[in-house]
Amino acid sequence: MAGRGLYPRPHVHANKKQTKMQRYKLTIEFDGTDYCGFQKQPLSKLHSIEGLLEKSVQNIFNEKVKIVASGRTDAGVHALSQTIHFDLIKTYEDHKIISGLNHYLQNYNIAILSCQKATPDFHARFSSIGRSYKYKIINRRPRLALDKFRAWHVPLPLDIKLMQEAATYLIGEHDFTSFRHSDCHALTPIKKIDKLEVIQINNEEIEIIISANAFLQHMVRNIVGTLTQVGLKKLTPMKVKEILEQKNRTTSGPNAPSQGLYFTSAKYSTK
Amino acid sequence: MAGRGLYPRPHVHANKKQTKMQRYKLTIEFDGTDYCGFQKQPLSKLHSIEGLLEKSVQNIFNEKVKIVASGRTDAGVHALSQTIHFDLIKTYEDHKIISGLNHYLQNYNIAILSCQKATPDFHARFSSIGRSYKYKIINRRPRLALDKFRAWHVPLPLDIKLMQEAATYLIGEHDFTSFRHSDCHALTPIKKIDKLEVIQINNEEIEIIISANAFLQHMVRNIVGTLTQVGLKKLTPMKVKEILEQKNRTTSGPNAPSQGLYFTSAKYSTK
Repeated sequence: MAGRGLYPRPHVHANKKQTKMQRYKLTIEFDGTDYCGFQKQPLSKLHSIEGLLEKSVQNIFNEKVKIVASGRTDAGVHALSQTIHFDLIKTYEDHKIISGLNHYLQNYNIAILSCQKATPDFHARFSSIGRSYKYKIINRRPRLALDKFRAWHVPLPLDIKLMQEAATYLIGEHDFTSFRHSDCHALTPIKKIDKLEVIQINNEEIEIIISANAFLQHMVRNIVGTLTQVGLKKLTPMKVKEILEQKNRTTSGPNAPSQGLYFTSAKYSTK
Repeated sequence: MAGRGLYPRPHVHANKKQTKMQRYKLTIEFDGTDYCGFQKQPLSKLHSIEGLLEKSVQNIFNEKVKIVASGRTDAGVHALSQTIHFDLIKTYEDHKIISGLNHYLQNYNIAILSCQKATPDFHARFSSIGRSYKYKIINRRPRLALDKFRAWHVPLPLDIKLMQEAATYLIGEHDFTSFRHSDCHALTPIKKIDKLEVIQINNEEIEIIISANAFLQHMVRNIVGTLTQVGLKKLTPMKVKEILEQKNRTTSGPNAPSQGLYFTSAKYSTK
């Protein structure tokens, strides 16, 4: 989930790919429940989104490809619209790419939403200037059936106003070290959150919407976990400001579970 | 799904149950994807909701019970809040029923939402004076990933205004023979639809909300299938009025698939 920069870096791939190749930009939706995450995990028995997409392209178009996404998501995380790219030697009509892949993937919970040709300097990860997520919480005493793998079940009542107040301290450009996973390899912990909203959808559903230029590993889930501690009155909103300022990853709340997280969109300045 | 009447029929069970027994009224939520439907199906390899609930009660409370629901739903149909009842010789605190069953059912997509003691004349089916469903359609070209088992995928554009117009002809008390399954055993095809709304939720999601005193077998799915034919401009709204008046089950549109259907609530005049 770590984005390394704000601007396109066309040089990164200049030596790898021939200019003859055609780059395709796709958006995809997936239910992350049955997968080991976006990235291939050699030791996992589960499929990865990346692995299934690469296998599909290879089987349909008879070319080996490397799939690049705007960001990598963990096991169990869903996507409403993730952006990916790959290159093919041959040029196909966009709708053939969509229907071919969707047909191949029909028994998996992955769907191709759109496909368009992109110029060689487009890069799903490095050209992205923004990513958005939503996080779904079901706040009720009884356990979940329909949303068992689609939301975080918080059985004790959450004070949403306190969560909203705490959220305001995180908006803007900050050093988010306190909300970073220890394995995170991002070059800088400084990210800019443009939007962080805590919304009461109905009497039991709470949605947290977050957009930033890029995110550190586990940053969204750490923020949601910490805001939820505020909702449970285990932390004050002001404490969240202190946690941010301490730049110490041991001070934030527990990581919210992956199944409530949805990647909603990646933003690009150009097509 | 057939409700046989509007009013309580306490005599139906008067001979079966001792007055000493305690009746429990529960609401439950379930994801119908992995089940053969509410009712036990001896020939199916899949679990039924009814069967799992009966087994749970028997294992926890050591009493054989018969589960009665406000209505039976087909394989693949979900419930946000289905009402059931059963009788036990012993009296337990309501929260013990909830936590016991929820613990037993933790590996299944069935959740107990509430439990309260009911008087012996309460009957989940015969005391119910109304049932409500919602039907979820995703109207977009690309296939579904997250909603694969949660909605009906209609790839061609639907004209929602025409669907709304057609819906008005079905509201009220009518003979719904045209929207009835051939196996339906309901005593009368005359039902009263109190509410039938076609709502555009967002740019791809359409929700159909329907409430009636009771429904014939497959009535909701037949109505949704027919309204969708109108949305696709294969039928005019006025044609739906004609279909209703013909009282002929071969004239209505195709049955909408079960995975888009959610039982939302059963209504009772008293607790």
